Amino acid sequence: MKRLLAAFAAFALMAAAPAIADEPCCATGDLGLIVERANGSLLLVDRSEHAALKRIDGLGDLSHASLTYSPDERFAYVFGRDGGLTKVDLLTRAIAARKIQAGNSIGGAISDDGQLVAVSNYTPGGIKVFDAVTLDLVADIPADGKTIGLADLPGRRFIWVVWDTGHAYLGDFSGPEPIITDLGQVGSNPYDAVVTADARTYLIGLFGEKGVTAIDMWDDDPKPVRFLKDYGKKEDDMPVYKMPHLQGWAFTEGQFVLPAVGQYELLWVDRNTLQETARTKVHGQPVFIIAQPASPYVWVNFATPRNGVVQVVDSRTHQVVRTLEPGKAALHMEFAPRGAEVWVSVRDDDKVVIYDTRSFEKKAEIAAKAPSGIFFTARAHQPGL
Amino acid sequence: MKRLLAAFAAFALMAAAPAIADEPCCATGDLGLIVERANGSLLLVDRSEHAALKRIDGLGDLSHASLTYSPDERFAYVFGRDGGLTKVDLLTRAIAARKIQAGNSIGGAISDDGQLVAVSNYTPGGIKVFDAVTLDLVADIPADGKTIGLADLPGRRFIWVVWDTGHAYLGDFSGPEPIITDLGQVGSNPYDAVVTADARTYLIGLFGEKGVTAIDMWDDDPKPVRFLKDYGKKEDDMPVYKMPHLQGWAFTEGQFVLPAVGQYELLWVDRNTLQETARTKVHGQPVFIIAQPASPYVWVNFATPRNGVVQVVDSRTHQVVRTLEPGKAALHMEFAPRGAEVWVSVRDDDKVVIYDTRSFEKKAEIAAKAPSGIFFTARAHQPGL
Repeated sequence: MKRLLAAFAAFALMAAAPAIADEPCCATGDLGLIVERANGSLLLVDRSEHAALKRIDGLGDLSHASLTYSPDERFAYVFGRDGGLTKVDLLTRAIAARKIQAGNSIGGAISDDGQLVAVSNYTPGGIKVFDAVTLDLVADIPADGKTIGLADLPGRRFIWVVWDTGHAYLGDFSGPEPIITDLGQVGSNPYDAVVTADARTYLIGLFGEKGVTAIDMWDDDPKPVRFLKDYGKKEDDMPVYKMPHLQGWAFTEGQFVLPAVGQYELLWVDRNTLQETARTKVHGQPVFIIAQPASPYVWVNFATPRNGVVQVVDSRTHQVVRTLEPGKAALHMEFAPRGAEVWVSVRDDDKVVIYDTRSFEKKAEIAAKAPSGIFFTARAHQPGL
Repeated sequence: MKRLLAAFAAFALMAAAPAIADEPCCATGDLGLIVERANGSLLLVDRSEHAALKRIDGLGDLSHASLTYSPDERFAYVFGRDGGLTKVDLLTRAIAARKIQAGNSIGGAISDDGQLVAVSNYTPGGIKVFDAVTLDLVADIPADGKTIGLADLPGRRFIWVVWDTGHAYLGDFSGPEPIITDLGQVGSNPYDAVVTADARTYLIGLFGEKGVTAIDMWDDDPKPVRFLKDYGKKEDDMPVYKMPHLQGWAFTEGQFVLPAVGQYELLWVDRNTLQETARTKVHGQPVFIIAQPASPYVWVNFATPRNGVVQVVDSRTHQVVRTLEPGKAALHMEFAPRGAEVWVSVRDDDKVVIYDTRSFEKKAEIAAKAPSGIFFTARAHQPGL
């Protein structure tokens, strides 16, 4: 009966506004999803209104979850730690489809045409590729170990590395059969990797040895190139409380900014020479380093126990220009796509804090249950996200 | 009666799918508008489906029209040559509001928070700023001449130059009253200007003298800097059939790419040194030079009478790598935001041609009446567009 009343109410509205009734619609350009990791739920938010719209439950284990959006900004594909692949519909504000596709998954990506969703798995290792509409399995690419750093490249291609063997692979799914190319050995135990926004450089962090590896994906014959050969954990370093996320590496003004592993430092690297150019002392061990759009600044958050602070660093001077204290356990930051504000998830205070990036004033807070990753729909239009 | 039947049909649908009925919606992330210049109409298109959805009439004189989108990708603000400011609703697929705000307007911009729409006018000169929701006038900034090159900057700011006096102005609309700052003289008769995607550099083309001017908008005290002092029309040059559009200047890999005025050439400029580094011979006088996202390539179209051709140039080698012939009068190009395809408007063949950017194969054509500008909703998320 309640459902019927709701339908009649909507009908009355439509009779008054027939132009809308012909095309039942709402815009999706300023929506977002916030991962509520302890709860297995997502919070659908309206960026312009600074408002939570709906909690969507039943996503399984979201303790290390990420997601990506369809090109029309209607669907989110959520990659859960339990191997769950869940398709969420932002219009109906509900789960559209869900399957457990592996024992343990750690991330995914969507092809540039929006037709294929690829998932990177630990147990068993390998890549599975699904039809974005039906979630039917399209390709199952095994690996000799755990696959990590999965990212999309133009032309229905994906790239990934294998932790156990250190090999990088390029998968081309544009033809009738996938073509998988071994790009060679990138180093020992790659722990994460990321593609730059111009889809040129695939940057790979190593755990088993020192150094960082880059592959130029614009090259006709892409090859791993090692640099920063002193980069990495040293025996006398502090313990590493949390491995930094490479998806948070920033790329600004011809520079890479890397988290110094186990140190309270950022490393600045010239993009062309791959040489270190500067270091910045920061509050703690960096986790995410994210460039504020349309600005010279990067924002940094930190590993436990120093994770109550966020710092802002100027990429021109390499100086910290601001230190903010959003609350207990600031886990993630997401910018409005044109940079006007930043949303910070504060897990242990059960809230998301929104700052104006120009004044650093707090603009709003949104209640959320143990929030971690924040994902705005504008990501649908960005290569490598 | 027809309207009533449509409403009942929609009601029946809703009863069958109550989850949708609660929130009447459709996604707007892959929509676009194509200017039909001779017809005073816009063609609403679905990028994923390669389909025209609806023709929207009554926009007035669109002979030199541009538009910008609200952050939620619901509304387009269309700036017509007749001084018309029209707000188009992509959900109802109809004009939501329209006013004639000046005698002759040539472009506009939306503030980073989506709340203010600014229009640049010739007759009378100056900037008018409107409330994005109501289109009520918020500020009227007069000028000593025609205003051009209007662009948004972070923090509810806009920048523009005045043709007659050569002065650039920064308008800050973040407080209760606008603060207008004269940034100084940029040169004689600036004819267009553009802000780079990182909102750092305001680049200004000059008609009254040689040279190009840049202003670093990240600087606390931004000042005009002249460079390429031999750049511009020479007496023995060919006639300039069409002034190049500065919004088409590409910025790739630490380089600017400029159209050589009156020449069949592109000029490559190092972004840091502002020195010319290379030239590329091309098919005709360049009009738009647009970077293909996630690639090393720029695409170029040309002034009449050589406007049946589009060329692709590699920003690493500065060589033409492909020449395409989409049809008679190829006026504009717009890329899918992740670069997989490009849409080319072919005015005199009354069509838009869609190419795969990897294979250069023609993927589809869409009939359109004398199409010119193509604008996808992803622009809502890009600074300076």
